[in-house]
Amino acid sequence: MFESAEIGHRIDKETFRKMMPSLREALLDVQYDLKEKADFPVLILIHGFDGAGRGETMNLINEWLDPRLIHTVAFDAPNDEARARPWMWRYWRELPAKGRIGMFFGSHYSDTLFDRVFNRSDRDAFDRQIFDILRFERMLTLDGAVVLKFWFHLSRDKQKQRLKQLEQDQATSWRVTKSDWEHYERYDKIRKYGEHMLRLTNTSHAPWIVIDGEDANYRSLTVANTILEAMRNRIGQPMLSTDRVEAPPLLAPIDNKLVLDALELDRKLDKDAYRAKLEQLQGRLNKLTRDARFARHSLVLVFEGNDAAGKGGSIRRITQALDARRYRVVPVAAPTQEERDKPWLWRFWRNVPGKGGITIFDRSWYGRVLVERVEGFAPEADWLRAYYEINDFEHQLSENGAIVLKFWLAISKDEQLQRFKGREETGFKRFKITDEDWRNRDKWDLYRQAVSDMVDRTSTSKVPWTLVEANNKYFARIKILTTICDALEARLSE
Amino acid sequence: MFESAEIGHRIDKETFRKMMPSLREALLDVQYDLKEKADFPVLILIHGFDGAGRGETMNLINEWLDPRLIHTVAFDAPNDEARARPWMWRYWRELPAKGRIGMFFGSHYSDTLFDRVFNRSDRDAFDRQIFDILRFERMLTLDGAVVLKFWFHLSRDKQKQRLKQLEQDQATSWRVTKSDWEHYERYDKIRKYGEHMLRLTNTSHAPWIVIDGEDANYRSLTVANTILEAMRNRIGQPMLSTDRVEAPPLLAPIDNKLVLDALELDRKLDKDAYRAKLEQLQGRLNKLTRDARFARHSLVLVFEGNDAAGKGGSIRRITQALDARRYRVVPVAAPTQEERDKPWLWRFWRNVPGKGGITIFDRSWYGRVLVERVEGFAPEADWLRAYYEINDFEHQLSENGAIVLKFWLAISKDEQLQRFKGREETGFKRFKITDEDWRNRDKWDLYRQAVSDMVDRTSTSKVPWTLVEANNKYFARIKILTTICDALEARLSE
Repeated sequence: MFESAEIGHRIDKETFRKMMPSLREALLDVQYDLKEKADFPVLILIHGFDGAGRGETMNLINEWLDPRLIHTVAFDAPNDEARARPWMWRYWRELPAKGRIGMFFGSHYSDTLFDRVFNRSDRDAFDRQIFDILRFERMLTLDGAVVLKFWFHLSRDKQKQRLKQLEQDQATSWRVTKSDWEHYERYDKIRKYGEHMLRLTNTSHAPWIVIDGEDANYRSLTVANTILEAMRNRIGQPMLSTDRVEAPPLLAPIDNKLVLDALELDRKLDKDAYRAKLEQLQGRLNKLTRDARFARHSLVLVFEGNDAAGKGGSIRRITQALDARRYRVVPVAAPTQEERDKPWLWRFWRNVPGKGGITIFDRSWYGRVLVERVEGFAPEADWLRAYYEINDFEHQLSENGAIVLKFWLAISKDEQLQRFKGREETGFKRFKITDEDWRNRDKWDLYRQAVSDMVDRTSTSKVPWTLVEANNKYFARIKILTTICDALEARLSE
Repeated sequence: MFESAEIGHRIDKETFRKMMPSLREALLDVQYDLKEKADFPVLILIHGFDGAGRGETMNLINEWLDPRLIHTVAFDAPNDEARARPWMWRYWRELPAKGRIGMFFGSHYSDTLFDRVFNRSDRDAFDRQIFDILRFERMLTLDGAVVLKFWFHLSRDKQKQRLKQLEQDQATSWRVTKSDWEHYERYDKIRKYGEHMLRLTNTSHAPWIVIDGEDANYRSLTVANTILEAMRNRIGQPMLSTDRVEAPPLLAPIDNKLVLDALELDRKLDKDAYRAKLEQLQGRLNKLTRDARFARHSLVLVFEGNDAAGKGGSIRRITQALDARRYRVVPVAAPTQEERDKPWLWRFWRNVPGKGGITIFDRSWYGRVLVERVEGFAPEADWLRAYYEINDFEHQLSENGAIVLKFWLAISKDEQLQRFKGREETGFKRFKITDEDWRNRDKWDLYRQAVSDMVDRTSTSKVPWTLVEANNKYFARIKILTTICDALEARLSE
């Protein structure tokens, strides 16, 4: 992979001076085009050997382009906040918005590579991280992003020479740190594992660009030219993902019997039994979340359900049992403009709790395969792909110790009608019923199908869906609380 | 994932009789359509629990469709031939041609699942196999294939009931084997690992279809309907892969300096030195390939190079040293019709040597990124994707113990002209020079760029390219033989 970068590329001063002005102008033009159209982001990753000009290149990009539209992030060792969450969390957070350029110095690749070089991961863990990256980058590029990954290369001898050179010059000696020499001593390992990592992640949608780091003129022109052509190439093209549906069609069952039909929605619990059980379960939940072992976990609760099925009331019965400093309720409505400018899962990654934390989602990422599917807000190709993306997201949460529980609150069509009417009649509940609720009701059967597909494709033993018979609120709340307590108990004693 | 399949689906006899005829007719229509257009294959995988109707479904498909156009394969434990090769080899061999339907009973999924269930693989090996599958199926679907994966489901109780039922009836008792009961005892493990495997491979392009296996009518109609709709949906659509280039453009280096330019093509060796070294190296090669340790490996040699660069002569110097029973030379020209009807890598998978074997490719899969790129025989999106597919292929070979060495024989443009003229003048060499050689020569610079991109993207420390300075044939042959002997020696003593 490094052959071309070791044959000694060089551009003389004069050629550089001749080429540079028009390149800079073109870059600015295309950057403003990107900003105005704002239909995709550009992510630039800077990697490679110390002394190969990575820092200089970042400065150069900020100098040649409009730096106000570039989001530059230098990732160092993860801090406490990041360590308490899935490892990709901190990269999700910093993703550039549509119309912007994000530049990462150190990225998911540095974690992966240096964990291996310094033996913090074995071969299997290394490969697992690489596959996390592959899925991440696939999602970004299908979402429209241009992902450019630069590897600045130097041979071992050249690196030594370069570090010495920098050290000897008073003006640049500060650039060479102890860690640079530590890395130099591990040159062969970095090269070996780096090559393995580059090979496995050198996809056609997000390829590596290996650059000879020796000559600054060559390096600068090559990087600038690559960024320019990649952006030019992408501007004006429709998004790849929405082009065409790859999947065979989703068919309704031939007997029209869906998972929801198997529920006895009318299961009952009387008020007295409810009160007694509620108190007992709230106590149990409180203790479980204060348990010392909970510090290695987190709790993610997802509430979806028919309109008026009682999500809010159920959530309140849970939060009553919790320490207010430990939990957050995240109500999910239509995304804001900021959120729409990021990959669709971004706004949920933002709200991932750290270890010991609890996040309760009142509606969630499942909107993608429910309302966005039914209302046509997301193209078919996108929501079909979302099942895989959701499973991947929840897998990462679960691998990090999160206990993820998902509840679908189901009521009958009649029960919903009663509740809607009741809300309209009761003054203080009137805000809870809108025209949209009535419109959704017209699409009852489409939602029924969407819920069934969702459960079939995203319910797993590690991250299960619980279908809740919710015509009787008491029964529903007790079932939910019991499920949570049982799951917590099981996972804490694993 | 199994929720919908456990709620008890059922279709009564009458409904079945009413729906069946039109469904069968439609299936035959679409099958003949597929055969005539012949622009994609259909691969149907049959999995799930014993007793859930897998065998009956295969029979049904063969009955309702035209079985002459269906290639049905039941995979059992791999035989010696398969065990000596990468594990996916036997699935590659049986891939259906364009216009045909392939049906696998047991497939790459059975190996993967039962290795885990019977503790022949650990979690990491299990996940590695799953990722092999993901890449394999991605390649197939990008190549146009419709991949339908059925999981026939039964709950634990239902399975027991069903096996007993079959056993008690004299007419069906032969269907229940010891292995069925062994699997039943491991129901929970099969379900648990099966779910994990299904979740990770439930992609939007090749999703799992989970089917309630209890009721034969429901099962049959569902399978038939799914196959019908998936084929209908795909017919007439252009291939996904060629729709659009996902990748940022490949740029030539800004100083126009390519890896080939760094070679001193004129490196020399005189005749006497050549003869002495040749004999010595051939002896060494002979011994190495007879070494007992070689039985755990295989040798794959790839020869590419400029026209008239001396590939044939070099290959002869190698085969002279080998036992004729151990090696095969595979000359690669334009694919036959049979080969064109399969995914492009299929014809190379066919020729993968088993352990202890040697295959020498005179031209190879690199044609995809050389002649097919330069001549426009493959669309840009396809040859760009091929770098990744090639690396994946060679990775699988290498993981299986193959020592893969790739040689590019480079001569100068002048030297080529001399050799062309020489060939035209010498009677017995005249067959070696064609109009095509002269046409290729006109595209010298395009090939130069293609070779450089090829080396940059597919040379790795495990599976390296060796660039051979070949203006002097003696020098070239000795360099090649030395490289092979050194590599063999290194790998055998690992």
